[in-house]
Amino acid sequence: MKIRRSERLIDITRYLLERPHTLVPLTYFAKRYESAKSSISEDLGIVRRTFHSRGTGILETIPGAAGGVRFIPTISKDEATEFIDEMTTELSEQSRLLPGGYVYLSDLLGQPDVLRTVGRLIATQYVEQQVDAVMTVATKGVPIAQSVSAYLNVPFVIVRRDSKITEGSTVSVNYVSGSSERVEKMELSKRSLKQGSRVLVVDDFMKGGGTVNGMKSLIEEFESELVGVTVFAESAFAGERAIADYTALLSVDKVDSRDKTIHVAPGNYLARTFK
Amino acid sequence: MKIRRSERLIDITRYLLERPHTLVPLTYFAKRYESAKSSISEDLGIVRRTFHSRGTGILETIPGAAGGVRFIPTISKDEATEFIDEMTTELSEQSRLLPGGYVYLSDLLGQPDVLRTVGRLIATQYVEQQVDAVMTVATKGVPIAQSVSAYLNVPFVIVRRDSKITEGSTVSVNYVSGSSERVEKMELSKRSLKQGSRVLVVDDFMKGGGTVNGMKSLIEEFESELVGVTVFAESAFAGERAIADYTALLSVDKVDSRDKTIHVAPGNYLARTFK
Repeated sequence: MKIRRSERLIDITRYLLERPHTLVPLTYFAKRYESAKSSISEDLGIVRRTFHSRGTGILETIPGAAGGVRFIPTISKDEATEFIDEMTTELSEQSRLLPGGYVYLSDLLGQPDVLRTVGRLIATQYVEQQVDAVMTVATKGVPIAQSVSAYLNVPFVIVRRDSKITEGSTVSVNYVSGSSERVEKMELSKRSLKQGSRVLVVDDFMKGGGTVNGMKSLIEEFESELVGVTVFAESAFAGERAIADYTALLSVDKVDSRDKTIHVAPGNYLARTFK
Repeated sequence: MKIRRSERLIDITRYLLERPHTLVPLTYFAKRYESAKSSISEDLGIVRRTFHSRGTGILETIPGAAGGVRFIPTISKDEATEFIDEMTTELSEQSRLLPGGYVYLSDLLGQPDVLRTVGRLIATQYVEQQVDAVMTVATKGVPIAQSVSAYLNVPFVIVRRDSKITEGSTVSVNYVSGSSERVEKMELSKRSLKQGSRVLVVDDFMKGGGTVNGMKSLIEEFESELVGVTVFAESAFAGERAIADYTALLSVDKVDSRDKTIHVAPGNYLARTFK
C-alpha cells in the first residue's frame, strides 16, 4: 500500500505538471490508479502542500460534481529576483554589444532553462486574469510566447511582417515603427485568433513601442481585447513611447558604443507582480 | 517520516522533469531534504520504476563519486502511435486546404499540448545520440525546435532568410529551393553555434528538401556535423528530393485542390524510432 501511494504521488505530480490550468476530475485519478476517491483526495493534499512549500505553484480544488483539481504554475518572489539579477549580469556583458547599440540576446532566448523561467515569470504575472491567447511578432518573440503559452496552457499566435502563402487569408494593419518613424505593415492569419479573445502580448525587446502598438491595433481588428504587454527587455528611448502601460523584466538603461559598456537594471516586473 | 518521503517524491519528480538530461548528484537531494543518501537512493528507485511503468522516461543512474541520476524523457510506442493517428485525422480536415495545395498548420503548431508531444517524439528518436544543438529555419520551425530543445536540454538556433541587425555577424549560404528552383540565401549568427557541434535539424514541413539542404551546408560552414533531420510533415514531391535521409511524423500524400481533399498518412517516424 505504501508503494502504491508513492507511485501515485509521482505520477500525479508528472500528470499535473504537464497540464497546467487544466481541470482534472478526482475520478480520473481514482480510475487511473484503481484507488478510492478518499485516497486520491489525501494524495492531492500532499501534492498541494509540497507544491506550496517548494514554490512550484498552486493546486486549486474545485468542489462539486463537476469539480476536481487544477494546477497553476507560479514563481516565488525570491526565485524571480534571483533570475532577474542573473540576467542583469548576463546582459551587461560587453561582448553582447552590437553595432548601433543593439544587444545580442539570441543565445539566451535559445536556452531551454532560461525560456522555462521567463515563461513561469510572465505566466505568474497574469495568473489572476483570463488569457485566451498569447501574441507575439516573428521571429524573436516566438520562443517567449511559446514558453508563456505552455505555462498558461493557451495557444500562441505569431504576427508577421512578411506575408506567407502557407497562412491563408490574413488581416493586416499599418504601424509606425517608433525608432525609425517608418510606416510598416504586419499581419495575422485570419483563422488564428477568435473574435472576443483576451490577448496577452509578449516580445523580446521594446524600444519605441511601435511594434507592440501595431499588435494592439491588430487585436482591435480581431475585435479582441488586450490583457497586457510584457517584454523581456526594454531599452532607453528618447521621446514618448507608443505604449505607456507595459512590463519589462529587464531594462537596458544605457549603451555606450564608444566605451563598449552596457548598463542593465531590473525592469518593473518585480514591483508590478509582487505587490 | 511517511510525510517526508511523500514530499520528497513529489519534489524530486518535479525537479527531474524540469531538468531533462541533467546529471543530478544524490548529495544534492540529500542536502535539499536533509535526508540520508540511502533514503534518497530508495526514493529514486521508486521514481525510476514509476517513470518506467508509466512511460514517462528513463531514470539513469551514474555510479561513482561524480555520479548521480539523469532523467531522459521518452515516449512509448503506443502513445506515439495514438498521437500520430490523431494528427493524421486533424491534417486531413478539408478546411486546412490552402490555395496552391498548402496545408494550414499554424494552429496546431501554436498549441502547447501538441508541441509538447512533438518535442517528446523527436527527442525520443535521438535519445541514444549526442546532440549539441537543434537547428531550424525561421519562422514556423521555431516552435518545434524549441520543444525538442526543451526535452533534450540543449539550445536551439534559428536560421534566417532575412538579415537582422540584432544578430551581429552572420555566416550565409545560398541554396536552391527545391519546389521553385530559385536560388535563395539563408544565414545564421556567427556566435550562435560552436565549431564541432552535433546538430539536429527540425522543421515543420518538407517539400523538395531544399531548405533542409541549405541548413546542411550551413552546418558544414560551421565545421559541425548533422545528426539527423526530422520534420513534422512531408508532402508528396514529384522529382528527387535534395535530402534523402530524413524522418517525417506525417506524410501529406495527396492534395486535390479541385475536390478539396487532403490525404494524410503517418510518416516513417514510427518505423524508424521503434525498431
